[in-house]
Amino acid sequence: MPNATLHPIADGSITSSPGFDAAGVAAGIKANDALDVALVHASRPCVAAAVFTTNAFKAAPVLYDQRILAENPAGLRAAVINAGCANACTGDEGMRNAQATAEAAARALGIAACDVMVMSTGVIGAQLPMDKLIPGVAAAAATRSSVIASGHDAARAIMTTDTRPKESAVRVTFPGGAFTVAGMAKGAGMIHPNMATLLCLLTTDAAITPELAQRALRDAVDASFNMITVDGDTSTNDTALLMANGSADMAPIAAVDSPAYAAFFQGLTHVLTELAQGIVRDAEGATRFVTITVRGAADAATAKQVGMSVAKSLLVKTAIYGRDANWGRIVCAVGYSGAPIDPSRVGVWMGDLELVRGGAPFDVDEERASAILEQADIPITVDLGQGSAEATVWTCDISHRYVDINAHYRT
Amino acid sequence: MPNATLHPIADGSITSSPGFDAAGVAAGIKANDALDVALVHASRPCVAAAVFTTNAFKAAPVLYDQRILAENPAGLRAAVINAGCANACTGDEGMRNAQATAEAAARALGIAACDVMVMSTGVIGAQLPMDKLIPGVAAAAATRSSVIASGHDAARAIMTTDTRPKESAVRVTFPGGAFTVAGMAKGAGMIHPNMATLLCLLTTDAAITPELAQRALRDAVDASFNMITVDGDTSTNDTALLMANGSADMAPIAAVDSPAYAAFFQGLTHVLTELAQGIVRDAEGATRFVTITVRGAADAATAKQVGMSVAKSLLVKTAIYGRDANWGRIVCAVGYSGAPIDPSRVGVWMGDLELVRGGAPFDVDEERASAILEQADIPITVDLGQGSAEATVWTCDISHRYVDINAHYRT
Repeated sequence: MPNATLHPIADGSITSSPGFDAAGVAAGIKANDALDVALVHASRPCVAAAVFTTNAFKAAPVLYDQRILAENPAGLRAAVINAGCANACTGDEGMRNAQATAEAAARALGIAACDVMVMSTGVIGAQLPMDKLIPGVAAAAATRSSVIASGHDAARAIMTTDTRPKESAVRVTFPGGAFTVAGMAKGAGMIHPNMATLLCLLTTDAAITPELAQRALRDAVDASFNMITVDGDTSTNDTALLMANGSADMAPIAAVDSPAYAAFFQGLTHVLTELAQGIVRDAEGATRFVTITVRGAADAATAKQVGMSVAKSLLVKTAIYGRDANWGRIVCAVGYSGAPIDPSRVGVWMGDLELVRGGAPFDVDEERASAILEQADIPITVDLGQGSAEATVWTCDISHRYVDINAHYRT
Repeated sequence: MPNATLHPIADGSITSSPGFDAAGVAAGIKANDALDVALVHASRPCVAAAVFTTNAFKAAPVLYDQRILAENPAGLRAAVINAGCANACTGDEGMRNAQATAEAAARALGIAACDVMVMSTGVIGAQLPMDKLIPGVAAAAATRSSVIASGHDAARAIMTTDTRPKESAVRVTFPGGAFTVAGMAKGAGMIHPNMATLLCLLTTDAAITPELAQRALRDAVDASFNMITVDGDTSTNDTALLMANGSADMAPIAAVDSPAYAAFFQGLTHVLTELAQGIVRDAEGATRFVTITVRGAADAATAKQVGMSVAKSLLVKTAIYGRDANWGRIVCAVGYSGAPIDPSRVGVWMGDLELVRGGAPFDVDEERASAILEQADIPITVDLGQGSAEATVWTCDISHRYVDINAHYRT
């Protein structure tokens, strides 16, 4: 019997969680009057949890938020996100601008600056256009609302080369009560394990301690964002931030082995997985969504290692773009994954077509393979024949359009 | 005073080394009557050394040659290389075909089968067309010659998606005598450290023990082939084979600290570096040759780690294709290399243009950057500001043409 039941919220947004309001406004940082400043605000202090980029070059907002998280883990009230400028490699002036952005939001919202986190995405090495950003923050504070549409505006405002917003929300019921988890993210390219270029903001009305919120977020990110790859690059700005306002009618989650924690982790993982998959589906130039399941592994880490090796292979990704059931490139990537592989035990399927058995071609039916490759979603399964552990990773193909976008977009 | 002097041989080929003959013939494995079987033969037994792929899926010829090398390290007489079919993932039949190929060459040359090594490149998972290959081997044996042009034919016969052969030869003089090192290689895509998809055959008349030949080859491969990357994939077939016939007028090289060993290592590294750079210059779809020098590192391993992180970044490679001096992507790749980086000490140059100083943009002169990016050779320097070690790696851009080739070529 499941401990918790998930009720996905159709057309949900970051404001689907009770007690949060949001806005997305056009401050003139992006061209063409596009929305470029998002604000998410909580009507009461929130427990905060966050996962940040592992890149040694951390953008100013990342360094700023790390300090806020350490100093104020249970009093967060708002997050400001701008697109168009990443505030990365910007030195002391970048740090002062991050602080000034938080202060502007605090003034407009009547809260303390240390209750505000900031995120930025866009061009590296340029200073934030504060003459546009500060009025934008004020406008966002003035127009914020708890209606679902305001959350949609916020999700549009954080897009860069994304072609559509990524949003997900779920209502979770369990024996001890009910709560909502909602989230929005931006992605597109430069997506890779260890929290590559993406910004993600999550809201929930669940009641949880800072320690367990941090643990749940880290583990749920490992099971979602860290299971996708687009091009293997890891950015300077990646941040996933969770704001938990504790307003739900439930006892605070305080033990990792409690049904409430399990329910919370399940809801969080659902939202993060939807956002992660949405990022891969909307990856720069992607024409195919590829699910790679590695099973029969000695342990889950090996399964992930092999899956990521296949998912990252440029040759596999271009073959899928070319609608070529090139199982040779798949076994090749399995072979160089670094995992201990016994080639004679390896099997590969594309959909239900068993391409490889015992390390050699088995049922290479080009006609059936072509039909599978015409689908938008391509399922690839690799069986290592060594154990019972498995892992699933998600990726996309690499197309001419990917090269177009990245040859000409100045990140 | 240099111990040895290198005299590059213009228009050299694998037969530039005294005592070797070669042939390249069209056996009908490739389409359009292209040359597809190469034979290199030594008039006396050779010391052999070889470096093989690290892929867990090792093609039949790799497994076969590993056995020959172990059993017969000083009696090698010939190598047969076919293109068009990799004899990989071919099970027991593939092993029997590798053996039969060696036996056919031995019969035609009047030597023992255990004196012959075999290499294959091309499509994975298909059995060798022995009805074409065996007559091809016989024809190659019948037409082999020690003229330079026969070496050129052999170099053409091992090409797959290569647009031109890669050959290099050098005459080395040192106080103890003189010898020649010559080599040929095929590459194109799927090139990555740890001996990615490439076949390389080297000949020399130097006299050297099997142990020192193996050591010199391994170290020279580390300094050349393992310093290049095209797309990060590592193949099932990679082999670099050195045949040393010992006919030069010199005392056999028997000590690693001898001037003769140093001279040999210098000559071998020269030839391998020329071949490695030739492979990058002819990489699938490449329009730019990129030299990445990382200096100021605490040690050489860190310098290489950072250089390879930049060289492998799809975002850096597509930016160079787009003629975009996107230093942000370069520092980003430095930052996620995994090496301990102090961002505030990092400098980046493109040619003599100092783009980044102290981790922040310094002299981003787009006009001068554009002029540099119009060159065929792009030099990028990264200074970590942490020590005095350095490393240089070579790569190329990723273009629309790369996607074309790999979406439609069945490897």
